[in-house]
Amino acid sequence: MHLVSAVTCLCEVPDGWDAIVAGHDDRPGRRLRVAVDAAGADLGAEPVVAGALAAAETVDVLLVGPRALVRPLLPGGVPPPGVRLVDAPDVVAMAEDPVAATYAKRRSSLLVAAGEVAAGRADAMVTPGNTGAAVLAAAVRMGRVPGVSNPALAMVLPVPGAGPTVLLDIGATAAAVPDWLVEFAVLGAEYARARLGLARPRIGLLSNGHEAVKGGPVRRDAHLLLATMPGYTGQIEAYDVLGGRVDVAVTDGFTGDVALKTYERTLDATVGLALDAVRAFSPIGVLARDRQRRVTRAVRDGLAAEPGGALLGVRGVCVICHGTATAADVEASVGIAGECFRSGVVGRIARAFAASSRQRLRGRRSPVDG
Amino acid sequence: MHLVSAVTCLCEVPDGWDAIVAGHDDRPGRRLRVAVDAAGADLGAEPVVAGALAAAETVDVLLVGPRALVRPLLPGGVPPPGVRLVDAPDVVAMAEDPVAATYAKRRSSLLVAAGEVAAGRADAMVTPGNTGAAVLAAAVRMGRVPGVSNPALAMVLPVPGAGPTVLLDIGATAAAVPDWLVEFAVLGAEYARARLGLARPRIGLLSNGHEAVKGGPVRRDAHLLLATMPGYTGQIEAYDVLGGRVDVAVTDGFTGDVALKTYERTLDATVGLALDAVRAFSPIGVLARDRQRRVTRAVRDGLAAEPGGALLGVRGVCVICHGTATAADVEASVGIAGECFRSGVVGRIARAFAASSRQRLRGRRSPVDG
Repeated sequence: MHLVSAVTCLCEVPDGWDAIVAGHDDRPGRRLRVAVDAAGADLGAEPVVAGALAAAETVDVLLVGPRALVRPLLPGGVPPPGVRLVDAPDVVAMAEDPVAATYAKRRSSLLVAAGEVAAGRADAMVTPGNTGAAVLAAAVRMGRVPGVSNPALAMVLPVPGAGPTVLLDIGATAAAVPDWLVEFAVLGAEYARARLGLARPRIGLLSNGHEAVKGGPVRRDAHLLLATMPGYTGQIEAYDVLGGRVDVAVTDGFTGDVALKTYERTLDATVGLALDAVRAFSPIGVLARDRQRRVTRAVRDGLAAEPGGALLGVRGVCVICHGTATAADVEASVGIAGECFRSGVVGRIARAFAASSRQRLRGRRSPVDG
Repeated sequence: MHLVSAVTCLCEVPDGWDAIVAGHDDRPGRRLRVAVDAAGADLGAEPVVAGALAAAETVDVLLVGPRALVRPLLPGGVPPPGVRLVDAPDVVAMAEDPVAATYAKRRSSLLVAAGEVAAGRADAMVTPGNTGAAVLAAAVRMGRVPGVSNPALAMVLPVPGAGPTVLLDIGATAAAVPDWLVEFAVLGAEYARARLGLARPRIGLLSNGHEAVKGGPVRRDAHLLLATMPGYTGQIEAYDVLGGRVDVAVTDGFTGDVALKTYERTLDATVGLALDAVRAFSPIGVLARDRQRRVTRAVRDGLAAEPGGALLGVRGVCVICHGTATAADVEASVGIAGECFRSGVVGRIARAFAASSRQRLRGRRSPVDG
């Protein structure tokens, strides 16, 4: 579970780190450079390349993957303007063990893409590949932000009638100890500040009830550690994640994965049934089909989670999208990566953990060291 | 976490146990007797009493709670035919610690209702009260089925286009060790046989992926222990709980609580947005409102989970419904309790664990002892 510390020995300091912490190279006219991992998705390279090409209208794209796989998918076999091919001969499959694959496949598209970010040749990476291996690749090549034990994957979920909620971790670190949940709270708060523009995000700890007796030993200890954190509102229920009560919902990667997938599946099932009902009760077929499309779009626009999660706690921007991402999802994930880079979330996180470390040196309690 | 063993010293053998295991007293003409806990719900006693009175059309109801609370809610202050008042002066509040409340409030409506079942004066109990205290009350008064370490709360979720899925545990036992998950699988399989009439239910272990590398140490060990169980299909994702791939989804009570509440909230939010969209795109207001009602009903009928969960592993029938249960929910929960009693699920569970115990004595591996 604790994947990242298992390969700490491989960790290197990224070349672009000082620039990232100091503030971004965001001069007018300079286009964002995003490394897109074209290999390892569930649906093959085609939708990923199509999405990357669409994104290349506005950003520079580094397409990372086996040359023989990617080149045939380019128009005329040649990268169009704004697109560069970066060869990475190894592919990590979805079912592979992340640690074993990271050791064995040093030229995987994941490690190469993360290496481009670490070397300062890309501003961000986007991957629809094996989540565990992607987390490791980012942690290994970019390194962790000092003070972060484990990165967390954060997803922005829309809430009808209220601002969105950041849910983390949704799968980077399946197990959790109280200290890690506290770190996730800091990561999520900085993400909410950077991406959602919230000055003082409200943070909840996902539990099985609001009451102090709920949550089991791990949550109860994390709850005590979080008590002094600005914006911390207490333990929340899963209802509250979509309820507008908090801006950040903190949990371990196992529970976050279950919550997110339950959400996605329920949304699909409900939309499907609602459309069946609209069709059944609509007297005119053509009108019904038209209404159906508009209802679907309205509900999906109102409720669908972002197609990619941001990996927080590593020294660079990494967006991990679904293994079944469509071209539109990949294009949108490049957009999320751009927002992450421009909002300076990595530098914010580094400063938050550095401040907490200084507090620790001065002997004060801080939200991070509990 | 392990609430039940904390109070094992209080455990008594219920009087009706032999009859329950042997087969039920289900002579034609005899009405079912259900003890309904009228106290401790979030919305007060009113909807609970209303639901119980509605249920009393077809079953005999024992209304359990403080006399002064319940009597004013009866028509004319007198129990109608089919309803009997059972005084229980203590009330366990939602936020109370279950163990402390169980020790301190020996005449709580929960312990009295469970005692009615244990004494054979009721066939089942229904409560919208504090879940942890309800689990303890049932375990303490009825006792656990021999071989069961912890009871599990099982909910039937509808799946569009397929048979329903039994999800357990949804909150009786928040923590889980591999052996308990195996017990939950046996409990869930017997519930699916008894209530859904499935000869060979397909059982999945809820995890964060299908791959063998997923799930963390607890799931991976449980997966190995379950490998020889008939009907076990492997680790599943949250998508599969509503996907028609399994009939029983097994997890710990913490994750089950998060999954169920995410499901309920997403369903509400999606239906709400779909209705807004139908209304927005419908040219005629009155028609839209009418359609709205029909769409809502169709979606809710198609997707809403049962309003009550069955507590499995105790020596009697106990249905725990939501703290915010409406009168209709309480009435439906009495119906679930009746189905549980008539289907003989408690006897089935006892026989399954007894068989497993005999196998153990003969030195064979069994699904339960792993």
